[in-house]
Amino acid sequence: MHPYTDITGRLLICCPDRPGIVAGVSQFLYSHGANILDASQHSTDPREGLFFMRMVFHLENTSISREQLEADFLEKVALPRHMEWRIDYTDHRKRMAIMVSRYDHCIMELLWRWRSGELEVDIPVVISNHNDLQKLAADFDIPFHYLPVTAQNKAQQEQQAITLLQQQQVDFIVLARYMQILSPDFVKEFPGRIINIHHSFLPAFAGARPYLNAYTRGVKLIGATAHYVTNDLDEGPIIEQDVARVSHKHAVDDLVLLGRDIERQVLTRAVKAHIEDRVIVHGNKTIVF
Amino acid sequence: MHPYTDITGRLLICCPDRPGIVAGVSQFLYSHGANILDASQHSTDPREGLFFMRMVFHLENTSISREQLEADFLEKVALPRHMEWRIDYTDHRKRMAIMVSRYDHCIMELLWRWRSGELEVDIPVVISNHNDLQKLAADFDIPFHYLPVTAQNKAQQEQQAITLLQQQQVDFIVLARYMQILSPDFVKEFPGRIINIHHSFLPAFAGARPYLNAYTRGVKLIGATAHYVTNDLDEGPIIEQDVARVSHKHAVDDLVLLGRDIERQVLTRAVKAHIEDRVIVHGNKTIVF
Amino acid sequence: MHPYTDITGRLLICCPDRPGIVAGVSQFLYSHGANILDASQHSTDPREGLFFMRMVFHLENTSISREQLEADFLEKVALPRHMEWRIDYTDHRKRMAIMVSRYDHCIMELLWRWRSGELEVDIPVVISNHNDLQKLAADFDIPFHYLPVTAQNKAQQEQQAITLLQQQQVDFIVLARYMQILSPDFVKEFPGRIINIHHSFLPAFAGARPYLNAYTRGVKLIGATAHYVTNDLDEGPIIEQDVARVSHKHAVDDLVLLGRDIERQVLTRAVKAHIEDRVIVHGNKTIVF
Amino acid sequence: MHPYTDITGRLLICCPDRPGIVAGVSQFLYSHGANILDASQHSTDPREGLFFMRMVFHLENTSISREQLEADFLEKVALPRHMEWRIDYTDHRKRMAIMVSRYDHCIMELLWRWRSGELEVDIPVVISNHNDLQKLAADFDIPFHYLPVTAQNKAQQEQQAITLLQQQQVDFIVLARYMQILSPDFVKEFPGRIINIHHSFLPAFAGARPYLNAYTRGVKLIGATAHYVTNDLDEGPIIEQDVARVSHKHAVDDLVLLGRDIERQVLTRAVKAHIEDRVIVHGNKTIVF
Repeated sequence: MHPYTDITGRLLICCPDRPGIVAGVSQFLYSHGANILDASQHSTDPREGLFFMRMVFHLENTSISREQLEADFLEKVALPRHMEWRIDYTDHRKRMAIMVSRYDHCIMELLWRWRSGELEVDIPVVISNHNDLQKLAADFDIPFHYLPVTAQNKAQQEQQAITLLQQQQVDFIVLARYMQILSPDFVKEFPGRIINIHHSFLPAFAGARPYLNAYTRGVKLIGATAHYVTNDLDEGPIIEQDVARVSHKHAVDDLVLLGRDIERQVLTRAVKAHIEDRVIVHGNKTIVF
Repeated sequence: MHPYTDITGRLLICCPDRPGIVAGVSQFLYSHGANILDASQHSTDPREGLFFMRMVFHLENTSISREQLEADFLEKVALPRHMEWRIDYTDHRKRMAIMVSRYDHCIMELLWRWRSGELEVDIPVVISNHNDLQKLAADFDIPFHYLPVTAQNKAQQEQQAITLLQQQQVDFIVLARYMQILSPDFVKEFPGRIINIHHSFLPAFAGARPYLNAYTRGVKLIGATAHYVTNDLDEGPIIEQDVARVSHKHAVDDLVLLGRDIERQVLTRAVKAHIEDRVIVHGNKTIVF
Repeated sequence: MHPYTDITGRLLICCPDRPGIVAGVSQFLYSHGANILDASQHSTDPREGLFFMRMVFHLENTSISREQLEADFLEKVALPRHMEWRIDYTDHRKRMAIMVSRYDHCIMELLWRWRSGELEVDIPVVISNHNDLQKLAADFDIPFHYLPVTAQNKAQQEQQAITLLQQQQVDFIVLARYMQILSPDFVKEFPGRIINIHHSFLPAFAGARPYLNAYTRGVKLIGATAHYVTNDLDEGPIIEQDVARVSHKHAVDDLVLLGRDIERQVLTRAVKAHIEDRVIVHGNKTIVF
Repeated sequence: MHPYTDITGRLLICCPDRPGIVAGVSQFLYSHGANILDASQHSTDPREGLFFMRMVFHLENTSISREQLEADFLEKVALPRHMEWRIDYTDHRKRMAIMVSRYDHCIMELLWRWRSGELEVDIPVVISNHNDLQKLAADFDIPFHYLPVTAQNKAQQEQQAITLLQQQQVDFIVLARYMQILSPDFVKEFPGRIINIHHSFLPAFAGARPYLNAYTRGVKLIGATAHYVTNDLDEGPIIEQDVARVSHKHAVDDLVLLGRDIERQVLTRAVKAHIEDRVIVHGNKTIVF
């Protein structure tokens, strides 16, 4: 976690698990002048037999271009090992969109952390189906787009949003309590690139009104879950979860209030992990390095 | 939480919420020579309008008998206010039975805390459908009863257990990972007096194999839930819950291992609250003072 | 924690512990038409023999004035029992000042929770020895006063601040990472009414550079402490503390970053407890109901 | 964390940080038929410039002996890079001694986890200066040695203990609330191999009576710290810490009771990390992989 002022690359790989992968990848990087700063790996159950790795490296003693590095990697390392892989570089700041309804706590947390330098992204666009948070976005000098939605215009409104997000070349979208269910058409435009915060510890209390349902069941913990959006509501791969302790003294309104703090923290940690290329989606689960 | 060497009474009440209850009860106790050591109260939502209270008192300057105190309380305080109530005294040590299968972690935790003086109960009987833990019970000088269960003898085995529990005048039963589902006939003998530990954060992963299901879903927290047993499996009033953080690195076996620690702590806290008369069951929820 | 729209009173008392206090106080309130909504009590070690109580009540069926109520209480309840006491009413919103230097995380958290309605105070003034946070205060429509401080003008600057705080009839002051040590002259103007956030789990790492010292010692947890300011630096009564887990991977800068989250949460909880009259200072310790 | 039934090696290294270490080590292991199962690395601040790594590997396709492997590693990898290193193999079960006084909670936790298979060590000896826990050790079939200590016989008693520990070829010693301060002569026999549990979150409340001091200071969290013993009391490298929340309601006895749970957990986690060769001591700090 040291501050390296220079540009680093982050390599994520997934391939069949067999001997020699760490040696092969690290030898490749070394021979191309890259110094490995951090590495994490994970092997799944032997029956499944998959290997995952994240390597952060620093290109310091090399005149090789990124294109050449990646072409070599593909040929010499990735193809022989049937690897899925990608490299992201820290000089490409990801472009993050925020979609929001009326609650300000999640977007406030994201914008404050972004302004403080903790979230290393650009935020070219905030989209909302209400105009309540227009001033908030303005306080942070972020463009705000008001796209109201009704039962009638929903398909059209989503199309407007897609166009806007594509024009802004958005890398990923954060639903910071956006109280609309996105259609399959929307989701398929941004596969694995939409992060939602759900206000319960999934799989408990999926769907609407989780705090009311938590109150009714009498649980002693409430939680929040950040996950990638798929077409199965609240069923996508979980990135991060957390909980807080409650008691019989908490009315539903108290749960909502307390829950805001958990939502803010869980969403922030998930977004940060995504920005730092720490998350690999595998099936309906995540590996978070 | 000071150590009062003398005997204290614990009064639990539930009644319609209206002005004057605290004044009425505390005035009654004062006028009968009782000093209030601790008091907690809870009012439900005004639409429901119920009032709950736990008062711990010390009978120091009185020659009145407990029978007379309770008769007076019934007439002067409880009846006019349509109260449900009870008083337990610390010189009546509750009698706790433990039912267990093969896992030793929960019973070990209970027995160790009992021996160290933290759980102020008597433990007249351990019942198990296996004989694996016979030596463990013997190490703590607790009578162990081996009542094996099969598909054929289940009703009969339960009847043996009921007889044994009644002979031993058991006040409540702790299912310390007893891997059998109790029949309605058994449950109705001990209403609100059977505490179970379930190895998930209910309502998530009710039923069998919660750790496997947690693994499959890819949650980032696993938990445990202590609850009173009702005839709806894993649906009874929750007393206590807690969780621990897990990651993609945890295989199912690791979840089982880590889960043992949560189960031990959650069950212990629930049992302790029950022993100290801190729990009031209201509908399918608990108030834990 | 139910939303009572009407005005409530919060009575805090401290007196020698002896039988009949709860009865006396609750009978007094009842006879004056007050309904007790919540009550908490605490008895210290019998050798010390003190009794503390917080009662929240609702004046609903009474035509009595507050002055009369308090005069009666003094005469009939407080004087005979040698009580220290006070009553605060929820229709008097406390006036909170914030003093801050350059870090924005603590003030941001307070202002956002204030705007969202969670902190029921007025904030008539922000004072800073830097002008970095002027725009932030403006975004929330809070008056910002820039009072720079040097070795030469420190006494004078403090006097300006005192005058300003008194003009604004401030009830209490929050030092939201105000990086100056207040002089005894300043502190004595606001006894028990200045809340500071220190960025360590006191008493560990008192004084300057706690994160650096935590790093050097190699602790596995870092923390934050909210306390009332006295003239002994970082020695005042602790209101709230919390910690977060760290490892060898955290450089000092990472501790600072992570610490911000703990500071925000701990300070907020302490301020909220103070606003809701939940804190009684007793010697150098607090009772937080 | 998968259960590999076969024997694995655990390589720990420390050396100056420069490019090519991961490549060099992993290439060496691969070329000797070792498959890397897990790897973690850490680079210190560039000014210090040190590199630490733990690699777990599986020797599957090799006829080479361990002696030859280590001789080759020394010559080809370690010497050129000025490495400190060691390899432990899982078929050498470490031999752990426990030293204890009268409190049973820490030793009980260790023995239970050992019996359940969670701690993969042999426990050839328990040493105590009291004989209270003789039966407990017997229940677990562990040899118990009663070596009483007085002001007069302390040096002699320590020498007896050293002889016993050496006869038993003990790899490391756990002070599971052993209430004696070990002399420098004792400590130097087992450098970096004595783990102590201290009942506070160090550096707060070092020395005697930490719970009393925590009570007097009025902290809102109490903690425990597991660390390696050096000749500076409570100043050795910290392995693990944790805390629990307390309030004004907790008398000193309550802190002691609650503290037991934290001590048990913290000590267990530290011992487990030591057994699994996850800890590297660097100066007065630890890297815990």
